Amino acid sequence: MKKILLCEPNVSEGRDLELVDRVVDQVRQVREVKILDYSSDPDHNRSVLTYLGEPASVLEATKAMAAKAIELIDMTKHHGSHPRMGAVDVVPFIPVRGIETEDAVEIARQFGRFVGGLGVPVYYYEDAATRPGREKLPSIRKGQYEALEAKLTDPAWVPDEGPEGFNPKSGATVTGVRFPLVAFNVNLRTTDIVIADRIARAVRHINGGYRYVRAIGLALEEEGMVQVSMNLVNYAKTPIPRVFETIRSEAARYGVPVAGTELVGPVPLGALEEVLKHYLQVHEFSMDQIIETALID
Amino acid sequence: MKKILLCEPNVSEGRDLELVDRVVDQVRQVREVKILDYSSDPDHNRSVLTYLGEPASVLEATKAMAAKAIELIDMTKHHGSHPRMGAVDVVPFIPVRGIETEDAVEIARQFGRFVGGLGVPVYYYEDAATRPGREKLPSIRKGQYEALEAKLTDPAWVPDEGPEGFNPKSGATVTGVRFPLVAFNVNLRTTDIVIADRIARAVRHINGGYRYVRAIGLALEEEGMVQVSMNLVNYAKTPIPRVFETIRSEAARYGVPVAGTELVGPVPLGALEEVLKHYLQVHEFSMDQIIETALID
Repeated sequence: MKKILLCEPNVSEGRDLELVDRVVDQVRQVREVKILDYSSDPDHNRSVLTYLGEPASVLEATKAMAAKAIELIDMTKHHGSHPRMGAVDVVPFIPVRGIETEDAVEIARQFGRFVGGLGVPVYYYEDAATRPGREKLPSIRKGQYEALEAKLTDPAWVPDEGPEGFNPKSGATVTGVRFPLVAFNVNLRTTDIVIADRIARAVRHINGGYRYVRAIGLALEEEGMVQVSMNLVNYAKTPIPRVFETIRSEAARYGVPVAGTELVGPVPLGALEEVLKHYLQVHEFSMDQIIETALID
Repeated sequence: MKKILLCEPNVSEGRDLELVDRVVDQVRQVREVKILDYSSDPDHNRSVLTYLGEPASVLEATKAMAAKAIELIDMTKHHGSHPRMGAVDVVPFIPVRGIETEDAVEIARQFGRFVGGLGVPVYYYEDAATRPGREKLPSIRKGQYEALEAKLTDPAWVPDEGPEGFNPKSGATVTGVRFPLVAFNVNLRTTDIVIADRIARAVRHINGGYRYVRAIGLALEEEGMVQVSMNLVNYAKTPIPRVFETIRSEAARYGVPVAGTELVGPVPLGALEEVLKHYLQVHEFSMDQIIETALID
């Protein structure tokens, strides 16, 4: 089976689209890598790239992309509404197919050493984290770019790669490995936001819910509905149908039916396997039976 | 989007595996074609090949495969329990991805002309049929090989391609285009075969059920259960979840729960789309969102 690694770098430029294009172009030039998407947000002043391919090609593309972004972006002039602390802000590598977490971590480390070699402090996060307190991006990025110079003088925040001193132009880069994330929203046929809030609390990890669920309740003003908006951060251990049926059951306590759901953005085939198995009660199905997947190898 | 055509030829040899291997080898030699499966049944004395690829490559492989089978198989000596009327008995082309039925029909016609040119009478069936009464394989194959010589003297059975006279060595070939078929079985937690029979009748077309469902009731002796065994011949127009929920509801009339289901053999991704949409109530999902499908192009 072909090994497929996905990479979703976030770079701190979302207004100068010509600059962004020069950064994306570094990925385009690696022909073995396929770009699924890239988008720039001027308010966030940030761009997100999504591409995939065999691990070595993805690494090559990501190095070239990062070198160009570090060359062109000047963090001393960066303003935007999204939290950030570096020109190449965060670079998650995501194992999609036939690749173990440890192999992906080795790719992230090679990338980290490369960025460190460019004079930019690097922190490893998620499955590549080197010590407690560095697993989660918000902890590492706390205080953002503006707090970074002081942070680097704190022994607890010695970078994993690169210089220990502050690099004003480029800030710092966070890289690592995480499971593919599924963005799953459930719309409820009520305008009562309290119900969406309660259900979000019932399913999310922080309040005693499922371990790999992050959730918030939102009002959908135009639709006259509310939404439980979720990130499922490990669909293998907390599968979609289990979360969905829990939400349906909690909503029924208030007499509120599910109006519909949304799967947002790219979804790994593996995340859908459990949906088939659960609802069709098919116990022995293998995703290799899907005709199209035979074409990937 | 890459165009993908699947082909599933049935040839009349299932005992001489060396001969079968020489036939399959013709497909193997077309490198752009991927063989998903091939299997031989000695009772049926018949082999089924499954392979796919871009239409032109599939046509090339199928011509070479058929020429070899016609060269090596002698129908005057053929005996087996499965209905058949030719050395290359039936060759369905199945549009899997990005290919219209008409384009697949044109491929089937090119294949038919080629086999006709080898001196074998050819009939077009299913979506390639040229006249009423030739849509269904059982009608064309009625009386089998043994009735073919007389049949060819009947003006109603003038072949679509090839000679009008009988070819004793090779018989006749049926080719055409059909929708991908989904083999879907529902196991019921009872030993009462009458219930499986009644449910099969409730869902199948012939008794007033869904248009694209063929179904029979079977006893699963070892499991102590019964099964509604189905072919869904157009999953787009009669989708899996609709049939499954009907069976569940019919079984509930007898207090019988569904023990599990089986999806047998290759399944097109498109057949699973409706499962996701139905059970997750996701209204706007596109299969292009699945990360792996991005790799097929």
